[in-house]
Amino acid sequence: MNNKIRTELKAKKQAYVRDEIIAAAAKLFAERGIRAVTIDDIASELGYTKSVVYYYFKNKNQVVWEIFNRIHAAWSQDTTAIIEQDIPPEAMLPALIRRHALNVMERTAWTAIYFRDQSELTAAQQKVVRDRKRQYDERLKEVYQRGAAAGVFRDIPANLMVSSIIGVCNMTHMWFNPSGRMTPAEIAEHYVTILMQGCLNTSARP
Amino acid sequence: MNNKIRTELKAKKQAYVRDEIIAAAAKLFAERGIRAVTIDDIASELGYTKSVVYYYFKNKNQVVWEIFNRIHAAWSQDTTAIIEQDIPPEAMLPALIRRHALNVMERTAWTAIYFRDQSELTAAQQKVVRDRKRQYDERLKEVYQRGAAAGVFRDIPANLMVSSIIGVCNMTHMWFNPSGRMTPAEIAEHYVTILMQGCLNTSARP
Repeated sequence: MNNKIRTELKAKKQAYVRDEIIAAAAKLFAERGIRAVTIDDIASELGYTKSVVYYYFKNKNQVVWEIFNRIHAAWSQDTTAIIEQDIPPEAMLPALIRRHALNVMERTAWTAIYFRDQSELTAAQQKVVRDRKRQYDERLKEVYQRGAAAGVFRDIPANLMVSSIIGVCNMTHMWFNPSGRMTPAEIAEHYVTILMQGCLNTSARP
Repeated sequence: MNNKIRTELKAKKQAYVRDEIIAAAAKLFAERGIRAVTIDDIASELGYTKSVVYYYFKNKNQVVWEIFNRIHAAWSQDTTAIIEQDIPPEAMLPALIRRHALNVMERTAWTAIYFRDQSELTAAQQKVVRDRKRQYDERLKEVYQRGAAAGVFRDIPANLMVSSIIGVCNMTHMWFNPSGRMTPAEIAEHYVTILMQGCLNTSARP
């Protein structure tokens, strides 16, 4: 093997181990809470000694922070993929609602950490999380304002609508059970109906 | 004064001091978090020595628990007053949404304690809170099911609709500012519109 191939292989292996550590840590954090999990626990989960984990991460906070960064990257990517589509606001908003609801339900380990354990971050990290949330809200708001300006959405203050969307979707993490009767897709569709059309049965009206 | 009057006056005074202690404690808990507040702080807030507070409450947990009980009693009373009205489900549900949203916004000290500090209760107390929440949800669910059976509400699982109502209203406590531009009543009306009719502007459709 020449040096270039060797370096590439090493980088690939390192990225793989890093992913492995993150996945194992996320699982343990979700199950037990961040405070109850040690670097030793994460290493044991993978059959490593803790020196392996310390080779990749300086301390537990760095593992936690990497998880928060990956959650953000994935959510942000999903949102961007929808916002960049050439579709009108009345199609874009339901797509964003659906994706947010599905993210809460399909990534339950992440959701548990994200909603419960922000207080485990440093003050500077918490500020970054707050700024990212604000950016996320702003993107939804912009879609709503576009639709309201075009007359397809009601004249509701965009920040109230965004707060409502996030309130409906995030509430799910309080009770969602992956082995429950309804699938995440079914639940997400009901949320789209509630938020877009409301619960009043207009077809029953004269 | 005869004994009866004396006893009545004493009872009145005690109820008054009890209310005073609860109000001062709720204010401090909301501002600083339950953990950061001592019985001494509560007494100082009222210009009492701590022995006065201890005369009424065995310890801080008893003060906290009394606040949780009063929140429950008030919310429950509000809900009962609406549910006992002789109005159809399509009028009752908006009234319940409006009241829940207003309760979150008008009683911000209580809301802060209720949403943030449940972990300060004992396990037995937390169970009581969970049971009460379940009862509250059940009452809303029953109203929705009645309307759905009558065909005035859409065929959405009642538990999803109730989760959505509570998600929308409770989210408010994350950002509500009593000196903000919108009044609680305006915000509550927008929530009623969103949840009952959705954000799609149906009047703009052909």
